Formats: sequence, C-alpha cells, structure tokens
Amino acid sequence: MQRIAVMTSGGDSPGMNAAIRAVVRSATCRGLEVLGIRRGYAGMIEGDFLPMPPTAVSGIINRGGTILLTARSQQFMSEEGQRQAVEQLRRAGVEGVVVIGGDGSFHGAQALWHDWQVPTVGIPASIDNDLAGTDLSIGFDTAVNTALESIDRIRDTAVSHDRVFVVEVMGRNCGMLALHAGLAGGAEVIIIPEVPYQITRIGTLIKEGRARGKNSYIIVVAEGAARGIAIAADIEAISGADTRVTVLGHVQRGGVPSAQDRSLASRLGAAAVNLLLENKPGMMVGIEGEDIVSHPLQTAWTGKKHMDLSLYELAQVLAT
Amino acid sequence: MQRIAVMTSGGDSPGMNAAIRAVVRSATCRGLEVLGIRRGYAGMIEGDFLPMPPTAVSGIINRGGTILLTARSQQFMSEEGQRQAVEQLRRAGVEGVVVIGGDGSFHGAQALWHDWQVPTVGIPASIDNDLAGTDLSIGFDTAVNTALESIDRIRDTAVSHDRVFVVEVMGRNCGMLALHAGLAGGAEVIIIPEVPYQITRIGTLIKEGRARGKNSYIIVVAEGAARGIAIAADIEAISGADTRVTVLGHVQRGGVPSAQDRSLASRLGAAAVNLLLENKPGMMVGIEGEDIVSHPLQTAWTGKKHMDLSLYELAQVLAT
Amino acid sequence: MQRIAVMTSGGDSPGMNAAIRAVVRSATCRGLEVLGIRRGYAGMIEGDFLPMPPTAVSGIINRGGTILLTARSQQFMSEEGQRQAVEQLRRAGVEGVVVIGGDGSFHGAQALWHDWQVPTVGIPASIDNDLAGTDLSIGFDTAVNTALESIDRIRDTAVSHDRVFVVEVMGRNCGMLALHAGLAGGAEVIIIPEVPYQITRIGTLIKEGRARGKNSYIIVVAEGAARGIAIAADIEAISGADTRVTVLGHVQRGGVPSAQDRSLASRLGAAAVNLLLENKPGMMVGIEGEDIVSHPLQTAWTGKKHMDLSLYELAQVLAT
Amino acid sequence: MQRIAVMTSGGDSPGMNAAIRAVVRSATCRGLEVLGIRRGYAGMIEGDFLPMPPTAVSGIINRGGTILLTARSQQFMSEEGQRQAVEQLRRAGVEGVVVIGGDGSFHGAQALWHDWQVPTVGIPASIDNDLAGTDLSIGFDTAVNTALESIDRIRDTAVSHDRVFVVEVMGRNCGMLALHAGLAGGAEVIIIPEVPYQITRIGTLIKEGRARGKNSYIIVVAEGAARGIAIAADIEAISGADTRVTVLGHVQRGGVPSAQDRSLASRLGAAAVNLLLENKPGMMVGIEGEDIVSHPLQTAWTGKKHMDLSLYELAQVLAT
Repeated sequence: MQRIAVMTSGGDSPGMNAAIRAVVRSATCRGLEVLGIRRGYAGMIEGDFLPMPPTAVSGIINRGGTILLTARSQQFMSEEGQRQAVEQLRRAGVEGVVVIGGDGSFHGAQALWHDWQVPTVGIPASIDNDLAGTDLSIGFDTAVNTALESIDRIRDTAVSHDRVFVVEVMGRNCGMLALHAGLAGGAEVIIIPEVPYQITRIGTLIKEGRARGKNSYIIVVAEGAARGIAIAADIEAISGADTRVTVLGHVQRGGVPSAQDRSLASRLGAAAVNLLLENKPGMMVGIEGEDIVSHPLQTAWTGKKHMDLSLYELAQVLAT
Repeated sequence: MQRIAVMTSGGDSPGMNAAIRAVVRSATCRGLEVLGIRRGYAGMIEGDFLPMPPTAVSGIINRGGTILLTARSQQFMSEEGQRQAVEQLRRAGVEGVVVIGGDGSFHGAQALWHDWQVPTVGIPASIDNDLAGTDLSIGFDTAVNTALESIDRIRDTAVSHDRVFVVEVMGRNCGMLALHAGLAGGAEVIIIPEVPYQITRIGTLIKEGRARGKNSYIIVVAEGAARGIAIAADIEAISGADTRVTVLGHVQRGGVPSAQDRSLASRLGAAAVNLLLENKPGMMVGIEGEDIVSHPLQTAWTGKKHMDLSLYELAQVLAT
Repeated sequence: MQRIAVMTSGGDSPGMNAAIRAVVRSATCRGLEVLGIRRGYAGMIEGDFLPMPPTAVSGIINRGGTILLTARSQQFMSEEGQRQAVEQLRRAGVEGVVVIGGDGSFHGAQALWHDWQVPTVGIPASIDNDLAGTDLSIGFDTAVNTALESIDRIRDTAVSHDRVFVVEVMGRNCGMLALHAGLAGGAEVIIIPEVPYQITRIGTLIKEGRARGKNSYIIVVAEGAARGIAIAADIEAISGADTRVTVLGHVQRGGVPSAQDRSLASRLGAAAVNLLLENKPGMMVGIEGEDIVSHPLQTAWTGKKHMDLSLYELAQVLAT
Repeated sequence: MQRIAVMTSGGDSPGMNAAIRAVVRSATCRGLEVLGIRRGYAGMIEGDFLPMPPTAVSGIINRGGTILLTARSQQFMSEEGQRQAVEQLRRAGVEGVVVIGGDGSFHGAQALWHDWQVPTVGIPASIDNDLAGTDLSIGFDTAVNTALESIDRIRDTAVSHDRVFVVEVMGRNCGMLALHAGLAGGAEVIIIPEVPYQITRIGTLIKEGRARGKNSYIIVVAEGAARGIAIAADIEAISGADTRVTVLGHVQRGGVPSAQDRSLASRLGAAAVNLLLENKPGMMVGIEGEDIVSHPLQTAWTGKKHMDLSLYELAQVLAT
C-alpha cells in the first residue's frame, strides 16, 4: 500500500481536524502518501482531491470544523454515484480510504468495501455519540462541555429570576448528550428518548417544589425526545411558573475541541492507519474503557449502544 | 445619612453582583449601613430586606446573575404599591436607595424620588446597552463576548458545510449587541433596527457570492429588527443556499462577567454611593469615554443614545 | 447507620464540590444525616463540623475549590492527633466518614479505619491522577484542559515569534498530566518522569528542525521530571534558538470543573455512600473503563498505576 | 497611491490579525493593492513580502498571534539596515506602510517617515497598553481578561487552602494590566510601578487580617514593580502565612481576541488606511473615549499616558 485518502463526512464535530492530522502524520511516518478528499462523498465523486503532506495539517489540532469540509451526498447513495467515486479513487491511485464521520458515513464506507472492494476503515466522529462499537465518538466530550457551559449561564439567570428554563440539546435519536450535560449541569429534570416521561408528573413536581420554596428549575430536553417549546408550554400550564426555553442549536457542533476529543482523535487516527496497513478493511476503530478496539463497520448500527441509565437515576437523586 | 439600600431590578446582567459589592463596600467604608432588597420592587413592597455587611459580598465579583435576585413588579406601577414600598423603606430606616437595572428600573427609581422624595440613584445594567446617559451599561461587554463566542463556534460548522447561518441575538429594540457581535465576529450581514434592510438584496448578494465561490455566510440579526427564522426562510428561498438559524437566547444573560464589566460595575457602584452622600438624588451614574459621569435619571430614556453607525458600514467593508 | 461525615483533604482539585454534593444528596436520599468537616484532618481534630442538609450543596456543582476547605495536617500523623479526631467523631455521633482527596488523604483514611475502626471510604481527587485503583481522579480532566488552553495560547506567540517555549506543568511524580496535555496540545517534545530523556538529543533535533524551516516548538515538561527553566537553558545553549519558559503553576488547580469531572464526582460520591451503607469500609471507589469499582484503600499506593506509554510514542509521531 | 504594505512588529498581541484583516480589506475596497511584510523590520530588510488579496485574511479575525509573524530587528536600528529596507520597499513599489506594534515598532515607523520619507502610519498593539496617544492598545482587553481568568482560578485554591497568592502579571514598565486585572479580580493588594508600596505595611495588614479571620489573599504584582517571588518571600516572612507565587508569563500574549480587541483592531485598521490615502503620514491612530483619533507618531512616547489612579484606591476600598 502506497497511497491512501482521508475524508470527513456528515455533520461536523470538534476533533475532526485532530483526526485528519493523526491519519496524515501517522500514515506519512509509515511511508504512505495521503490524499485529502474534500466535501465527503460528494467530493469523492467529483475527484476533489488534494495532496496532504505532514505540513498540511500543521496548526489544526485545536480548530473546530474540518479543513476537508463535509457534506451529505444523495448521489453517492446510487450505484452510479458509487461507481464514479470508485473510478476517481482508482484513477488517483488510492488504495485505502479513511472515513471520519457518523452513522451515515459508515454506511457509505461499508458500500465502498463490500460492494466495490475499496479497502475502507471508519473513525467514529459525532457529537451525538450514537454509534455502537465505541464508548465515545469524536466531538461528544466537547459538545457536552459546550452544552454544559450554556446550562451554567442559564442557571445564573434562572436563579436570579426564580424561573423554569427548558434547554433543548442536540443528539438526534440518542439521549446521551442530554443525559451527560444534564447530570453535570445539575438539571432538575432530564428528558431523553430512552426513558418515558410524564409531563403532568414533572409539572406537578415543579409546582410542589415552588410551594416549598424551590423556585428555579433547569429542564434539559434531548431533541429526540420532545421539542423544548412544547415542554415549556406544558410546564407553564401545569405549574404556573414563568417558563422560558432555549434551543442550543448549532453552537454545539463547533468550538475548540477538548483535551479528551483531541487525544481520542489522535489515537483513533493512528489506529485507522494501522488497520489499513494490517490489511483489515471494512472495520471501524473505537475506544472501550482505555483500550483502542476495532469492529466490523456495521457494528456501528447493528451493535447495541450501551447507555448507562443509572446515570439518569443518579441525576434525579442528586438534583433533589 | 446612615443607612441605604441596594437592589437589582428587571432583566439580570453579568456584573450586577460586582455592582452590589461595590455599593456595599464603598458605603461601608464611608460609614453607612447597607440593606439588600431582594427581588427588586416586588421585594421592596414586601419589605424583603437583609443586612449587607462587607462579608456578604465576598466571592461574588466573578459570579453571573444577582445574589439579590430580581423581578418585574406590576404592583409597583400603582400608587398603592409605591406607597407600601416607601412605607417599608421608612420603617427600615432607609435614607437612600441604589437601583441597579435598566430602563424600567429607572422609571421606578424616578417615581421613588419625584413622587415620594426617597433619595434614589440608578446604576445602568443591561445587556442591551440601550440606556442613554452612559456609553456602556453593565453586562453589555460580557454579552457581546458571549454572543461572539457562539458566532465563532457557528462559523466552524458554517464553513465546514458551505452553509448560511442566521444568528439571532438579543437587544430588545436596540441593535447595539448585534452590531458589536457581528463586527467582531466578521459577520457578512448584520440586521439591526436602526438601519433599513432589503431581504431581496441580501439574498441576491449571497446567491452571487456563492456563484463566485464564497460559500458560507453568517448573518447576525438583532431580535428588535426581525425574527431569525423568517430571515432564514427568505434567504433560503432567494439564494437557494442551505440556511440554518440559531437563536442564542438567554445564554447571553448569564456567565462570568468580563474584566470590563467588573471594572465598570465597581466604578459605578462607588459613584452611586458618592451621589447619595453628596445629596444628589434623582440621578443616574454612567461612563463617557474614560470618565464617570452623572445625569438626571430620565436622561436614560429621554436622552439620545449615541450609536455609531460607521461601525455598521465598517463591518460591511471588512466582511467583503 | 444514621450519621456520616464528609471532608476534603490535601491539594484541592476541580470537582471536589461536585463530589461533596453527591455525597450529601445521595446520603440524605438514603435516610442519612451528613456533617461536613472543615479543613480536612485538621478540622477533624478540632471538631470543626457543620450540618450539611441538601440545600447546603445548592449551586456548587460548577464551582472550583472546596466549600469545606482543605489543609494538610501534621498533627493527624501522630497517634495523639488521631485519638482526638476519633473522639470528636464519636462525640458528634459520626458513624462513617467519606474522605475526598489524594494519596496522603487516603493514608489518613486507612489509619481511621484500620487503627481506630472508624468506617471510612475514600474518593480519589487529584489533578495529578497518580492514584492506582482508578483510571481517573476527580480534577484531572479539568487540569488537562486548563493546561491545554495555556499551551494553545502559548502556541500563538511561539509561532508568531519563531520561538521555542518550555511549558512546565504540575503532576508531582507523575507524568500523566504532562503527557495528556502535551499530546492534545501537539507539543513537539514531552518530558515526563516515566521516560528517560537526553537533553542533547532534544536540543539537536530542534537545531536541525530549525535548519529545515521548522521554527517554533512547544516542550511540555512534567514538574516531576525536570525544572522548566533548566530545560530551557539547555535547549537554548544547544540549539541556539530563542527559548522561553512558562511555569503554569496553581492555575491548574482551580477553575470551573469540566463535564467529565462533574459526572465522575457525582458517580463516585454516590458510590462512596453505597459502600458505607453496604458495610464495606476501608475501601476506595474508582472508575475503570465505564464502570464504578471499589478496592481496598491501600490499592491507591500499593497498586500499579497504569500509564499508557503508547501515547508518548504517538505524540512523537504526530508532532513530527 | 496604488500599493501599500502592512506588517506586525515587536511582541505579539491578540487582535493583530484582526488589524491586518482590516487594513487589507479596507485598502482593497479603496482600490489599493496590499503587500504583507513577514517578520517585521527583519523581513522588510530581506524583502520578505507576499501579496495580500482579501481572501488572504479570511478566517483570521478570531486568531491570536499574527499570520505575518513578528520579530525584533537589531539590523534595522542601523542606517545601513534602514537603507536596505527602504530599497526593498521601493523595488516592490510600496508607497505607504502600516506598522502594527508597540513603542519600539513606532520608533522604526518614525525613522521610515522622517529619515527616509516613506509614508508610514502606526497602529498601537500591545498587551501592556503603555503607549500614549490612545486610551487602548490592541490586545490589552484580551490580556486583562486572560490574567483575570487565571486570578479567578487561583482564588479557588487560595480560599480552599487559606493561602496568600502572589500573581505576577506582565506590563513592562506600566502597571495598567496589573491594575485592571487586580481591580476586576478583587485582589486584596495591587503592586504597580506607578505607586510606591511598603512591603512591611502589606505584610502587617495580612497578618492582622488573618488574626481577624480573613485568611486568603490575592496580591497582583506588575512585573515592572517587583518580582513576584521576592514579594512572596517577604510576605511570608512578615505575616507567617503560607504564601505561593504564580508568574502568569506568556499565556497573557496569546488566545482568542476579545470582542473589544477585534472591534478596536477593525476600526484602527481602517483608520490607518484612511490616513495614508489622505496623505497624512508620520501619524499613529488611536481611540479616545468612543472616537478614533490620530496623533504624530512620537506622541506614543513623548505624550503623557493617562493612568487613572483612582482605580487603584477604588480597588483598595472594595477589597477590604
């Protein structure tokens, strides 16, 4: 193997650049040439490639977003799109591909390997942390801290005004981000798709709490469980409390990656290159406990994502 | 004069605690006793007062929100409410009041002094920076930096995805916060109430820019000018660009106050105590250039708030 | 068991307050009363106790330092000191103690249990992360991020000036903090006690790098390996490069705890209370992978602290 | 005038990149071409120039350091060095120069204009804020906030340990940075070159305070007034208190520029281009109150830098 390519795909997450850097530098160190594919599968189809010598990734380890840009590609979902993409890779002499992204990106990687025999490995990067096969995805720790910082700020104003605040956080169908940000932020209520909730019970608890003199509340809602605005309306109707809503939105995707995300990205990037060199395509890398592991790509969506619901109960106990 | 009271009122802003600390400590140093009034005019009516020795304000200079809590009071708008409030102050031996807050709070202060002869001075605190009589209100600098941090994060994802982002910031009827955050954030478009805008022109500029290869845009919208979601829909319709919206919301109110807001709050707090001791009630304190100044309270709403629109043009030139 | 006590001891670390909150609230929820011991073993000897109802820990989850204060106590190292401390605990009806701290604090906890039969459990809190029996100590993640933020800042000026910077970080005899901050910060050189280094080799590498046009370098030094100032002098002498040194110092101890440290502290606090209720004294709690575990207290200093030196090699490869 | 050059010189400060961006974009908008000079006067002598189209300054408004690099040049202090530099400018068709930097950089600018008739204007950028002719230099606000953040962190550990901390901040011969960070940080003692201090009096105050139960102190020392380590030794000897010292060092130079520094840099950059186009060389730009002003270059060192010492007294009153 002499030349590989690296790309980012799907929603961006903080630490993608650190992963690109790790792929490029560890590959170079192992004697490989690296091409960067711009704008994910869309750029692969168009042959939008650029050489990535080690200096191309200088000064990016602490930058949010992705220098390779990212996109979602409808065209790559068709056989014709894939054929063109594979043709571009062959023409450029690419013998292996590292795909940095989430669920959708890994499906594309799976197609590249299984349907077209292009050796491909996946690096999980998603602020949602919704992929099985790894405890953590790149960007999750930063996103939790970003959401937490917002919750801290909102707490200031909630307490000062004796108000209820509903904070809607990202996470797609997964409550991981909401759960961790809510636990760390001392949220009185956390609403996630994995646990049924009764709005009447929540509203009544708040009403009773306020009668006892507990006046301000933070409710963290995962976007996959409910809309913040609907929750706020119901709470206000039931409890009579002045209730406001904040939808954190895309600020959760950006920002300087945390130490943990940069370390994770560095380790996973190097591990992905190892897999290609050891001729183990069709795999994803991941972290379990302190160990770097690998699994078949489809583990990401067929595996069981472990979610520790004891954290949910803990958050309830501690916010009493 | 032997005993004064201090309170915060209206929307909270970062640096209110630093102002409370400054009032308490400089008053104590001048031989005065200080009472804290909780929850603004509502607490004044109820006589919700607590003693504020210098140690009561230890460790709060860097805390967002207000330890005295804040509220809006309907009751204080009636003569009866005011009568009760004044009675509570007299009963507690309060000879002067320092009100920390914005426009509405200053109207209350004006009533206290003009209608009831309670010596009162105002300290401008508002993230909107919409009061005349001062270049800056407490909390504005922190709020601009908080909004800016969000814009920086959103820029990461905007660039990575070739997207247009509309960021709606606070400011009530005033575009100051949007203008400063937009200029510092390098926003391509800033929409504020003070300057008419043509959505067709903006959408067309973006369309043309994208045709030339300028793919990502940040549009900062003051809540007083338009709703972010409406702007985003129009931009997407006109330009065809993938356009997202983020409403920053109440995160802009909280957080650790910036150095400038803490210094400003410290200076204004001491100046307010001076005004009471110099027997100059019915005044507000403020900063003009580097100088601490004072004006009659009504200057806050009758004065002309200077807004330097050359910054608006500058932002346009620099974001080209 | 009806009444327990909680204390912090030794060097403070971010997240200690979150751990206190977790102990208090989970104990209360289980029907226990909680006392707080101020200033660690020194306060235990003096009987400096205060009741800790659930409201005593409101609003502290995001605060650095420790509301219970901390100290190092010479007196507690003597039998007489311990006797007095135990007597104070008995007098106050304390049936179990939770000690939050590091190595030295755990030795004290061990004495309480083994020599005086006071049921005691330990929660590891140390920015050094030098205790065995747990992958992570409370405060480590925050300290790594604080050090990293400083390295990012220094990188700005290092690059702008073509300079070499030596950054000395904490960690006592352990290189964990330096290793993680250095890896995440993209440091070109990391010097830790666990890996021998040759200053001549480092100086020569820098000299050669500069001849090739690589002009700025960050060298992260663990305080347990060498003094930054000595390293800087040697590097400058060998390489001829303008070399500066920054000793990060006590800023690494403070600050708002990260999401991970708050979650960890919350989980460990609840687990410590469980151990007391399950009548398993003389133990420490910890985290291994995603699991909360417990070990005998002495594991902290007799166990083998796992340090993944592959991270060291990885940092070298990636910073090339 | 058709072509100008821009450079940064001397110590770097946050916001220099925002100033470069403003010079480039406002000059381009006025029909000028812009060259960037790398590494200050050293690069001017070597003719190390690069074209700066508007896209060259994309994405830098929020970046610390300077993309043009900076240096101090001995050679430019000689007539021969200056002759070479001027020759390089002429050869490159440069008709005007914008120098971004501090005191030393402005002396160079003065030489360019007065001795060699190269139209030159200066933009004040210095974290020390020690130049006359402007209320603020670019980078000062960010540096104050960076120092303040460190003081906040250190406060956590100082309070938790009942300790005295001495924090040495930058500022060269000027106490501005120490004064503003100390005031905003609630430092109990501030030591600056502009105000004589008696170490015995400070030590005694601390001793007496501790006897009364005030146990932790923050002392902010400007590097131009004393060495932190010397102050700490004296305080410990006199007061008997456990006293630690932290030298903040170069972290104060880097980091993401604050909103105020970015706005200031944007305004000053545009104003500098205006001066060149209005044929007013030999001037510096600055800000006074809310107004952009200009003065002859030598004002920077011959003018009287206003320093409001009432802030010093205020800090003392408020920290009691």
